[in-house]
Amino acid sequence: MKIIILINCPDQKGIISSVTGFIHAHKGNIVYLDQHVDKTANVFFMRLESDFETVDLAVLQKNLESQLAHRYKMQWSLHTDSKKPKMALFVSKYNHCLYDLLSRFHSGELPVEIPFILSNHPDLKYVADQFDIPYYHVPLSKENRDASENKQVELLRKYQVDFIVLARYMQIVSPKLINLYPDKIINIHHSFLPAFAGAKPYHAAFERGVKIIGATSHYVTEELDAGPIIEQDVAPVSHMHSISDFISKGRDLEKIVLSRAVKLHVLRKTMVYSNKTVIFS
Amino acid sequence: MKIIILINCPDQKGIISSVTGFIHAHKGNIVYLDQHVDKTANVFFMRLESDFETVDLAVLQKNLESQLAHRYKMQWSLHTDSKKPKMALFVSKYNHCLYDLLSRFHSGELPVEIPFILSNHPDLKYVADQFDIPYYHVPLSKENRDASENKQVELLRKYQVDFIVLARYMQIVSPKLINLYPDKIINIHHSFLPAFAGAKPYHAAFERGVKIIGATSHYVTEELDAGPIIEQDVAPVSHMHSISDFISKGRDLEKIVLSRAVKLHVLRKTMVYSNKTVIFS
Amino acid sequence: MKIIILINCPDQKGIISSVTGFIHAHKGNIVYLDQHVDKTANVFFMRLESDFETVDLAVLQKNLESQLAHRYKMQWSLHTDSKKPKMALFVSKYNHCLYDLLSRFHSGELPVEIPFILSNHPDLKYVADQFDIPYYHVPLSKENRDASENKQVELLRKYQVDFIVLARYMQIVSPKLINLYPDKIINIHHSFLPAFAGAKPYHAAFERGVKIIGATSHYVTEELDAGPIIEQDVAPVSHMHSISDFISKGRDLEKIVLSRAVKLHVLRKTMVYSNKTVIFS
Amino acid sequence: MKIIILINCPDQKGIISSVTGFIHAHKGNIVYLDQHVDKTANVFFMRLESDFETVDLAVLQKNLESQLAHRYKMQWSLHTDSKKPKMALFVSKYNHCLYDLLSRFHSGELPVEIPFILSNHPDLKYVADQFDIPYYHVPLSKENRDASENKQVELLRKYQVDFIVLARYMQIVSPKLINLYPDKIINIHHSFLPAFAGAKPYHAAFERGVKIIGATSHYVTEELDAGPIIEQDVAPVSHMHSISDFISKGRDLEKIVLSRAVKLHVLRKTMVYSNKTVIFS
Repeated sequence: MKIIILINCPDQKGIISSVTGFIHAHKGNIVYLDQHVDKTANVFFMRLESDFETVDLAVLQKNLESQLAHRYKMQWSLHTDSKKPKMALFVSKYNHCLYDLLSRFHSGELPVEIPFILSNHPDLKYVADQFDIPYYHVPLSKENRDASENKQVELLRKYQVDFIVLARYMQIVSPKLINLYPDKIINIHHSFLPAFAGAKPYHAAFERGVKIIGATSHYVTEELDAGPIIEQDVAPVSHMHSISDFISKGRDLEKIVLSRAVKLHVLRKTMVYSNKTVIFS
Repeated sequence: MKIIILINCPDQKGIISSVTGFIHAHKGNIVYLDQHVDKTANVFFMRLESDFETVDLAVLQKNLESQLAHRYKMQWSLHTDSKKPKMALFVSKYNHCLYDLLSRFHSGELPVEIPFILSNHPDLKYVADQFDIPYYHVPLSKENRDASENKQVELLRKYQVDFIVLARYMQIVSPKLINLYPDKIINIHHSFLPAFAGAKPYHAAFERGVKIIGATSHYVTEELDAGPIIEQDVAPVSHMHSISDFISKGRDLEKIVLSRAVKLHVLRKTMVYSNKTVIFS
Repeated sequence: MKIIILINCPDQKGIISSVTGFIHAHKGNIVYLDQHVDKTANVFFMRLESDFETVDLAVLQKNLESQLAHRYKMQWSLHTDSKKPKMALFVSKYNHCLYDLLSRFHSGELPVEIPFILSNHPDLKYVADQFDIPYYHVPLSKENRDASENKQVELLRKYQVDFIVLARYMQIVSPKLINLYPDKIINIHHSFLPAFAGAKPYHAAFERGVKIIGATSHYVTEELDAGPIIEQDVAPVSHMHSISDFISKGRDLEKIVLSRAVKLHVLRKTMVYSNKTVIFS
Repeated sequence: MKIIILINCPDQKGIISSVTGFIHAHKGNIVYLDQHVDKTANVFFMRLESDFETVDLAVLQKNLESQLAHRYKMQWSLHTDSKKPKMALFVSKYNHCLYDLLSRFHSGELPVEIPFILSNHPDLKYVADQFDIPYYHVPLSKENRDASENKQVELLRKYQVDFIVLARYMQIVSPKLINLYPDKIINIHHSFLPAFAGAKPYHAAFERGVKIIGATSHYVTEELDAGPIIEQDVAPVSHMHSISDFISKGRDLEKIVLSRAVKLHVLRKTMVYSNKTVIFS
């Protein structure tokens, strides 16, 4: 059985030795060990991928808590590959990120389940139909915001969703949802953040005359486009490119950057600390 | 004789045909023709590189003015390769951009003259000495700002400087200088503008947790770090990199980006319009 | 009406002036002019995009031939935007390039018609069905090669196909097809050519220990993986990546590079000369 | 005291736990731990950076050998920061890599000593003089090859050189030297290896019509341009670029890629195995 353990705690001497000794004592074989110390914050991070021929998960977790976590003041989580995480997709009208994620999912590249696609518009139902995934049209307006958010929460609960991907979902996500899914809502913003946060970033980039455009995938927090960055990428542009060229080039960036971020999340390679990410890629 | 002509004017039918016909009529052979139309602003831009076996420059310029410029409301400039432009270097304490530009100059890669290096600190005199170029130490403080700026202007005039390169010069350039050298002062800013304008951009980038850092070369205008962008480049970073790693990686970006911008300027491949550049590279 | 004219001819004085004068005389307005001289081969290339309010195409073409082409020994072609080119897709078992092209097509990003998808395997029929495009399964083996190629040619003729895209089609294309579609068959090879031509390039790249992998889109010629390169891109790899990581990262490169090449071809921005391309992007 | 330990051995259970326990037992604090398993070759690699308040180096090394190395069949090396490695520079006529390395050295960016610069030409003596470093002109021809190589070895021994950097040294290095400095001679090749190995790679790249050029730094082995790759980087090119443009763009790649490779080597972040590198960056 493959087990992934994520740990963070105050940095101290001897942690690595203690943790690796613990795994060894439980007959596990460490396949990957990634570790990082944030020296400014004095925080230690670790990701351990281990193989166990046989293991009693309950005992392992109890011992981890009593033998290690208490002593080092650790926050930890343990993940096995026995269950695929459930990923909800929120979209609006653009289909490029949706198509990209669905075709990866369909090819087995993304080890997730996709219980449903939700949109504030009916436009992309045809894509959901192509891939035979339930599509919920939940319109959103000033008037119905509360009811709509309740509908969203109800769907997420019903399908026991583990994390949410905003695949060019053009609406602010409510604090209620963010609190239900802390560090579990992944957004794609169509600029090289922190430049051009907010609406119409390609227009702003064109106006400023930049020579490179970008896309940024980040975890959603209450402050708009200011959450922990998971992945970024860029592409060159020139005076020859119009705003619609920016948008067209940007689409390719957006879909690739978002899918990379989703993969990192699914493989438990991301950890969040003080609004930044540690990415063990 | 090689002649470069730069033109901009309101976009109209027939300009290219008129200009190329004009060159042909004056026995010139067009080697490169680059053209661009800014459709938002309705402005036409052209860069023509032509060979003339023999030409009377005064006549050519007079005819260009009377036969073309008047008719199309053109702004134009004409450049020959008979005289190398004079480039002043302003520096503070960092030597990487300075070394990079001087070694390119020394290798013949940059067809300029460098009459002097100016600094608000004495630290880099040894580099100037290595390359045998006059070094002027012009200290700058609140108290002596006016006198220092006058000293700068005096030097620029004395040496008939054509353009200025701020090779990590850590001082605000005075409006007086900017007005004397419009679109002729090239700065390197150590961030991917417009993100992290102003002081300590690597610290701000680290704080924000970006996954890519950048450098931007631009023409200096009165608004800090907001002038027309000539060239940008980026490099990946991760949680493993400290601020000093950012600074170290950034140095390589800065020197390459600045030298590219300087080359584009020297080869007359840049045109400025509404705070943006057209780069005919 | 928008008209694109592509020209190549021996380099001589006065061509640009003559061509632009010709367009002007026929009441056309030049929107873009791109030109290039291959100084080694002494060949002149030009791409002209012009707007005509009204134009008699037959007259324009006759005059172009008699007034320009004869004089300058030009090869030229003229394209209007009145008819979308017909693109056939050849695939085998991998679906990522196919999905990428079809989703772009479906979004209106690719101005083509796709009369059919052809494969030597039945596996990807479900994708064709999702997008409602005819799928022809034409098996290929040593024994049936001739019959299969005849079947291919028959389909291409029946549907009046203009160009062919090999979207990870894992078979050698026959010389017969190549001669029918010179510079009109676009392949994607999963390496940074000319490194790792032929079979299993990711395995070879892994074996060599490269730090960057790539993908290359090129026009198909009789020599395997040696045709004119249209577009290339790369991605970093490290010792941490296995061959299957190379393959996974490579998929993203392949689909982006292929789609860029297809777009350049469709927009008539590619010209081929002495086994190289001029790309007016 | 900072101590870096590099280890490789057959992969087995419990290594990480044993090694980290060993460091802990000797009162060391692990600052960085990087580990990698080559699953094809079944080899385990580790780089440990540890702080020791006080340590008896001889005892540490003896215990490492008896308590760990024997048991796990390890190859290991131990490095302290108490002594800067001595780096010899070999050059021919191009100065860009030389200037780049010397200016980094001069700025304190490269923690090495440079006892001398050696060249088969007298041309770059002026650069050595600028930086006040001894310059040895050792001409090389068919006739004097043996004598010249003996002279090289003599100099390397006299100055107790630790590793050699070929900063565009345009001569084959003799097997004698390679055997004296296994995995300790760093070359920069001006192509994206394995494409365009050997002479005149920019000419070959131009001829092939590639859209991206590259540079590769590698350890020198007896087979030309086929040693373990340390670092690679690339830059876009187009039909507009002549061979001399390739060369000019390439210069920037070469100097940046070489300096990155040298830094990785100096910081003991490279390990070589079966003609590939593990780079713990």
